[in-house]
Amino acid sequence: MSNTFGQIIKLSTFGESHGVAIGGLLEGIPAGLTIDFDFIDSEMARRRPGQSVISSPRNETDKVEWLSGIFEGKTTGAPIGFIIHNKDQQSTDYEHLKDVYRPSHADFTYSSKYGFRDYRGGGRSSARETACRVAAGAIVKQFLLEQGITVQAWVSRVGPIEMKDPVDFSKINQREDNLVRCPDPVIAAQMLQYIESIREQKDSVGGIISAIVTGVPVGLGEPIFDKLQSRLGYAMLGINAVKGFDYGDGFNAASSLGSQMNDAFTSEGGKIITTSNHSGGIQGGISNGMPITFRVAFKPVATIGLEQNTVNSKGEAQSLIAKGRHDPCVVPRAVPIVEAMAALVIADMLLLAKAAEPFTTK
Amino acid sequence: MSNTFGQIIKLSTFGESHGVAIGGLLEGIPAGLTIDFDFIDSEMARRRPGQSVISSPRNETDKVEWLSGIFEGKTTGAPIGFIIHNKDQQSTDYEHLKDVYRPSHADFTYSSKYGFRDYRGGGRSSARETACRVAAGAIVKQFLLEQGITVQAWVSRVGPIEMKDPVDFSKINQREDNLVRCPDPVIAAQMLQYIESIREQKDSVGGIISAIVTGVPVGLGEPIFDKLQSRLGYAMLGINAVKGFDYGDGFNAASSLGSQMNDAFTSEGGKIITTSNHSGGIQGGISNGMPITFRVAFKPVATIGLEQNTVNSKGEAQSLIAKGRHDPCVVPRAVPIVEAMAALVIADMLLLAKAAEPFTTK
Amino acid sequence: MSNTFGQIIKLSTFGESHGVAIGGLLEGIPAGLTIDFDFIDSEMARRRPGQSVISSPRNETDKVEWLSGIFEGKTTGAPIGFIIHNKDQQSTDYEHLKDVYRPSHADFTYSSKYGFRDYRGGGRSSARETACRVAAGAIVKQFLLEQGITVQAWVSRVGPIEMKDPVDFSKINQREDNLVRCPDPVIAAQMLQYIESIREQKDSVGGIISAIVTGVPVGLGEPIFDKLQSRLGYAMLGINAVKGFDYGDGFNAASSLGSQMNDAFTSEGGKIITTSNHSGGIQGGISNGMPITFRVAFKPVATIGLEQNTVNSKGEAQSLIAKGRHDPCVVPRAVPIVEAMAALVIADMLLLAKAAEPFTTK
Amino acid sequence: MSNTFGQIIKLSTFGESHGVAIGGLLEGIPAGLTIDFDFIDSEMARRRPGQSVISSPRNETDKVEWLSGIFEGKTTGAPIGFIIHNKDQQSTDYEHLKDVYRPSHADFTYSSKYGFRDYRGGGRSSARETACRVAAGAIVKQFLLEQGITVQAWVSRVGPIEMKDPVDFSKINQREDNLVRCPDPVIAAQMLQYIESIREQKDSVGGIISAIVTGVPVGLGEPIFDKLQSRLGYAMLGINAVKGFDYGDGFNAASSLGSQMNDAFTSEGGKIITTSNHSGGIQGGISNGMPITFRVAFKPVATIGLEQNTVNSKGEAQSLIAKGRHDPCVVPRAVPIVEAMAALVIADMLLLAKAAEPFTTK
Repeated sequence: MSNTFGQIIKLSTFGESHGVAIGGLLEGIPAGLTIDFDFIDSEMARRRPGQSVISSPRNETDKVEWLSGIFEGKTTGAPIGFIIHNKDQQSTDYEHLKDVYRPSHADFTYSSKYGFRDYRGGGRSSARETACRVAAGAIVKQFLLEQGITVQAWVSRVGPIEMKDPVDFSKINQREDNLVRCPDPVIAAQMLQYIESIREQKDSVGGIISAIVTGVPVGLGEPIFDKLQSRLGYAMLGINAVKGFDYGDGFNAASSLGSQMNDAFTSEGGKIITTSNHSGGIQGGISNGMPITFRVAFKPVATIGLEQNTVNSKGEAQSLIAKGRHDPCVVPRAVPIVEAMAALVIADMLLLAKAAEPFTTK
Repeated sequence: MSNTFGQIIKLSTFGESHGVAIGGLLEGIPAGLTIDFDFIDSEMARRRPGQSVISSPRNETDKVEWLSGIFEGKTTGAPIGFIIHNKDQQSTDYEHLKDVYRPSHADFTYSSKYGFRDYRGGGRSSARETACRVAAGAIVKQFLLEQGITVQAWVSRVGPIEMKDPVDFSKINQREDNLVRCPDPVIAAQMLQYIESIREQKDSVGGIISAIVTGVPVGLGEPIFDKLQSRLGYAMLGINAVKGFDYGDGFNAASSLGSQMNDAFTSEGGKIITTSNHSGGIQGGISNGMPITFRVAFKPVATIGLEQNTVNSKGEAQSLIAKGRHDPCVVPRAVPIVEAMAALVIADMLLLAKAAEPFTTK
Repeated sequence: MSNTFGQIIKLSTFGESHGVAIGGLLEGIPAGLTIDFDFIDSEMARRRPGQSVISSPRNETDKVEWLSGIFEGKTTGAPIGFIIHNKDQQSTDYEHLKDVYRPSHADFTYSSKYGFRDYRGGGRSSARETACRVAAGAIVKQFLLEQGITVQAWVSRVGPIEMKDPVDFSKINQREDNLVRCPDPVIAAQMLQYIESIREQKDSVGGIISAIVTGVPVGLGEPIFDKLQSRLGYAMLGINAVKGFDYGDGFNAASSLGSQMNDAFTSEGGKIITTSNHSGGIQGGISNGMPITFRVAFKPVATIGLEQNTVNSKGEAQSLIAKGRHDPCVVPRAVPIVEAMAALVIADMLLLAKAAEPFTTK
Repeated sequence: MSNTFGQIIKLSTFGESHGVAIGGLLEGIPAGLTIDFDFIDSEMARRRPGQSVISSPRNETDKVEWLSGIFEGKTTGAPIGFIIHNKDQQSTDYEHLKDVYRPSHADFTYSSKYGFRDYRGGGRSSARETACRVAAGAIVKQFLLEQGITVQAWVSRVGPIEMKDPVDFSKINQREDNLVRCPDPVIAAQMLQYIESIREQKDSVGGIISAIVTGVPVGLGEPIFDKLQSRLGYAMLGINAVKGFDYGDGFNAASSLGSQMNDAFTSEGGKIITTSNHSGGIQGGISNGMPITFRVAFKPVATIGLEQNTVNSKGEAQSLIAKGRHDPCVVPRAVPIVEAMAALVIADMLLLAKAAEPFTTK
């Protein structure tokens, strides 16, 4: 298992959905950063279950206990250890899944790889683990903000309902005014209604989260293999239920011509910028100073309340109606997870870039 | 810079487009594998420039010199060092680019990050480096083949022309019968014609490469962060000109319902399989034994023969008509690169999975 | 900061001497290992302060809380998270050290590197962190024992008092019969008396820990750089107060001839062994099946009750009589730490060796 | 196999003693460093075989071919690839070793681990590989020199003959005036005579190399696990024939009292220094600005011309008189290797320290 993310700014996590606690350690945040704990709480609230009618009714306060690495309110350079106790687990809900494999869930693969599995609430494969990413991400975001960098994500698609780019970036924050986290209130209302109808059908639906990172200096990204987009894609594809990632014009670029896709350089106030941003802020694997834009595609949650065909651990055919508490659409709660993972990547690349600065004599 | 890929099976590369040589070292291939050097040559031929009317006229034989790690025709477990001499570089073609930044190329970001750059043929940012990946990948593919695993990629889109899935997988090899590497001969002919028209316009066009990996055992992938899809996405997004990656139903899953996307389990000959494969062979970040499927989106090559607006290193506006030798569409030659990177990922995860096998007493 | 040790079997730790808790996560232990929690407690007791008249009077029960990765008494393959609450910290003891640098302690270097420091009990630089290593090591030892591998260390020197090799290895366990952890009861008594006299002088004294690992199969170690001795040395030099490491005949080999040092091969019961073991069980960086032997040199604890000259954070001269609770000689309590670190190295190399096994066709 | 050393400044090597070539890639050297190729040649000459009557008669010019990463005489930030062709290999010398295991050599362990081995000249286990380290180290040293850091090693013991510290550091360079590389000309002459007598006996002898690194700023080292001494020890123990490492007062500290070993702080010209340096320039795993001092113990070369008992690959007893060309004492030629590895560690930690600098708002 790989439980650590990043090279200088690193997040390691542990914990299962129905264990005593989940937790992690965040490393590499420079010493001296003053922590705003209220901000962390507000980030946790964006991800936590039970936050609205369209999220899982599991009720977790997700209060983070900070154990180390912070002294007199500031980071010390030492690893920041933290745990989040699990409180509202209802493990008996999962007894019926002990020997049966939910379609498109991790039950079969975990059992096969490890010989047995903690079947309660998905165990280690549960998205509950992402609470740790949001907690750590909340600190990383504060670090980035002090460098003038902001990371913002929003829901741009739920099933058939899409909010087209270009979004007016100044209005992204409106996403927090509705339960779906889509900046366009009209489309948000449609999405909400759609999700509710899907929930009533005991089905689930997929969606897309779009994101923008602003204030990124020129020079982040470590080609050949740790290109900025490679790290971002790696980060996003490690989030539960993610099926795809693209950046800039992404998959649309595949249908386009070079003369349409190229971003002309120009000068503005002594700074070299581009007049368009099909590149999504990354050229040759390195940030070019323009906003970084990308999209993340989520499949529908695998656990649905409809009857499905499957097998048990002996391979015998079985019919399954899954119980347990789940989201009909995962994207509204995944917005802070996408932001957290992006923040981890950007911050890591920021510190790696310091080590790659051109030579100067002492 | 990050020049090493993988954890157990590792490829490190070095070299610039117009330097003395490019090369690399391939590590972790188990000792005792007999190498088929003809197969390596045939893989190199699939990627090399000058192979057809729709590829760059730069003429490189791309003969690989193997320097270490192979003794009496077999791998020894030691690192396999190799170099490929650059022969047909025409560096004077690039003098006009010394102080100017080609739009959507790596010129500006490399110059900014490193203070100056080797401007000849793109230097380190050139796709010439991928010859090393194909060379190493040709050995990795042989290793995988001995484990019953095959990696196959093909061109499924060029600009507006698309070959829809499901492809008949037994016919993938037909892709090698045409210059575009699309398995459908009719669509391949359309693609070829389209690329030629684009070349005549001095423009470039993007495309999509699809891939399938068969014979993968259950259990590859190391969640939480090194999920199999995370590693594949990371690998693909590190290939020059790639803008997006998805696997299984990918971005389409975002518009779908759980009841449509879930893959029902069933038994066949004592083996648990799924009746559909929307998951693309990966569940919970771990291979489930079904074929692994994914797509890679490429943007149009940035260097085009049309006049473009840009700036020089002082930020002064300039008009540019780029010279140098380039492909009008990169996807036909990128097919073996996609295969090589996928092979590196799968082989690495295969050996990592050995280290994660459940416990047995000695 | 680097807080993670190992490649497949990995230990990450967090926590300060006087924070809320210390803790860590242990990764890579294969799934299915039954955990003996009593054994863990007994290992913790060997390291804990307050265990005897010659150790620090700080009184910590060092009860480990296991948070994840263990289900129904067995490892699941998921990371094993744990914390140990700090209970008997007396932070006010350290107020007088807030602005002063104790000679040969980490105060000055931490303050310089990180801008400020958690001065309470040494903060992150405190050997309290090694409790996490012992906790994790206790699980790793159980894993190794199931593979037939035992790791044993003992005190072979305290100041001028030395127990010469060859120790009768069957008697190593006698080390637990005395407070010093020296297998020879007569020498142990001398050491104890010496340490007590040093404590009365308010001084401290150094020592040497010797170790042997038996049952190691041929083939552990990953040259060129991750030679088995390189990893062991790296591990030992990361323990607080360690100043040196050697293996086999070590520094004595520097004064010797090849004809004296070479270990002749012979066969015994169909197995190739050596008739002597100057090599310490490692040749060419790889275990040869003989017992692995090494030594670790510890300096005297830096914090002493005698008056010393030093400076404060402004560089002004100051006289210091350090308060706080410390060991007059660290080696008795460091024995389980050396064992834990050695166990981590051996287990990691054991799993890495699986990934390096010679090739077989599927 | 592990063939890469370091984290930001990284060296990867490949190649066998009697293969086509050895080589490597050096990564992470900041862009813009002007390379002095004559200095590299002089460093290679210090390590090369055939340099004097007391070294192996194998005659290699060890001319390094630089393939990438250097443009117009300066580093570009891209990986620096290089190869050194093997010229004077006499592989038939080694036919008699194909099926026999030389005592205390890597023959048996490599054959066991990898199933077979390249027996010519030791293959990958040969110290010939260290030529790559010296080549790369010569560049790293230039980088360090520009930061005001020098790395110097010398022979301080050959068998029973020892040069005691404190050496007058201004005279270290005198080591290059004699074949043994000991700064004291009288002792050097004794050492030389001793080595010659050992050679005549067809035996070999061990020795110790001491080293000092000056100009190191406060703050290098990444505790808990990547303490500066941990990395140095790891580096040194990866050099062929090394059996031990200590720093500062090292093993002697084990016999000493805290009141003797502690280094009092004082101020000098506004800078905090210590009045003694038992710590060897490292406290709490971090450099304190004083010179870094350490020692490396080498065993006698395993290959000797005397008759020895051993077994063949079937485990059958055999008598062996090894042929091939070897050094009677390895330490004179190992001096530049120790320096190169130390330089790699220091430079890596220097760049890592940049990433760990305390926080500042943009």
